Amino acid sequence: MKRIVLIRHGESQWNLENRFTGWTNVDLTEKGKQEALDAGKLLKEKGFHFDIAYTSYLKRAVKTLNNVLDTMDEDWIPVVKTWRLNEKHYGALQGLNKKETAQKYGDEQVLLWRRSYDVAPHDLAADGTGSALADLRYAKVPAQYLPVTESLKDCIARVMPFWECEIFPKLKEVDNIIVAAHGNSLRGIVKHLKGISDKDISGLNIPTATPYVFEFDDNLNLVKDYYLGDAAAIAAKAAAVANQGKA
Amino acid sequence: MKRIVLIRHGESQWNLENRFTGWTNVDLTEKGKQEALDAGKLLKEKGFHFDIAYTSYLKRAVKTLNNVLDTMDEDWIPVVKTWRLNEKHYGALQGLNKKETAQKYGDEQVLLWRRSYDVAPHDLAADGTGSALADLRYAKVPAQYLPVTESLKDCIARVMPFWECEIFPKLKEVDNIIVAAHGNSLRGIVKHLKGISDKDISGLNIPTATPYVFEFDDNLNLVKDYYLGDAAAIAAKAAAVANQGKA
Repeated sequence: MKRIVLIRHGESQWNLENRFTGWTNVDLTEKGKQEALDAGKLLKEKGFHFDIAYTSYLKRAVKTLNNVLDTMDEDWIPVVKTWRLNEKHYGALQGLNKKETAQKYGDEQVLLWRRSYDVAPHDLAADGTGSALADLRYAKVPAQYLPVTESLKDCIARVMPFWECEIFPKLKEVDNIIVAAHGNSLRGIVKHLKGISDKDISGLNIPTATPYVFEFDDNLNLVKDYYLGDAAAIAAKAAAVANQGKA
Repeated sequence: MKRIVLIRHGESQWNLENRFTGWTNVDLTEKGKQEALDAGKLLKEKGFHFDIAYTSYLKRAVKTLNNVLDTMDEDWIPVVKTWRLNEKHYGALQGLNKKETAQKYGDEQVLLWRRSYDVAPHDLAADGTGSALADLRYAKVPAQYLPVTESLKDCIARVMPFWECEIFPKLKEVDNIIVAAHGNSLRGIVKHLKGISDKDISGLNIPTATPYVFEFDDNLNLVKDYYLGDAAAIAAKAAAVANQGKA
């Protein structure tokens, strides 16, 4: 049996402040770090091991992974980092409070920005404030690949080449992979693996720091998928994520 | 100008308990973590950036690196981990208290085990207790490469192939490299870079979590080397390391 475990980062400072984060490089809160440590403990208890790990260029995902691997005593495994697993870029909304934005533009508009498949928020300011272009970490990415805003569709479109060329085929070489990333980049992977429609994918709320296990046979056909942990706690976490953008 | 920064891990639990550690996978203490955060802060203040990082398979080095990169906001860079950067294997001494060992065998014998160039401690127990062979992390290393004890000479002999094939030539591609490792694996690198003799190398005490900067010209000739930080504090740290094995 082969396994890929997806894990969304723990609570970040801007999750706590209920602000749109996107590509902003916000740190984990203490609670977020503890969530990651708990996830690592759970994975270890359940006998999981990993051969390789993938994560984004964003601190909250990298540190979630580091804390998971530390707890599992597997911090020696190779870790591959890529901008392609970054969160959906939230354009001009990055930094704004979700509730205040909803009060200003209405729940419906914010839900559209957060959860429609192909509507992207406004671009970043024309002066490029907050642009990834100015950030050293993206210096080796072709400029035309770097978003100034993204719909979920755009986000998935830049995640999938990496999934198809790097992560998924790696499962022919090794048996156990972990991917630590973000709500929307992981939505793209789950959509692809489970054949979820464009319409339904926004209804999928992946809880923070909860190992989401996908099992495959030797031909890499998906056999089953499940969250690891207490079902009620997982449902509560997913509901909390779903409710963030309401006024 | 091209730079390689070497950094020895911060204080570990067994540094604190004054026990021989070697390949035992001991964690950092809180002080050790703080040392790493301070080193990251210093590197950031001095305008350092890194393109790639190398570390060992041992938690105390990995976590020192993670904390340095976190503080520098460079936790997105590629990190390559290798068993070849591990600490010198201390054979049957691993786990023993340094002072008690000195009381039993005498300062001179312990100094020989700790600091002679080519005398290795006794092998691990014949039953293989504590053997790297039993550890999943070394499963892909040819068994005959895995030590059961090492002299400094042995340790350097297994560090250097990785240095010569991977780390040093990488400096043709990138300008800034950081290597987070251990007292003895770093001794090997410094010995090579500075042409220190077999006799003199054991007198080199590298302080914990102190960035040791090596600058090279474009032909990769060493131009200069220096520690970053307060000279008195660095000297005190180096002296503390030198005095650990005395009764």
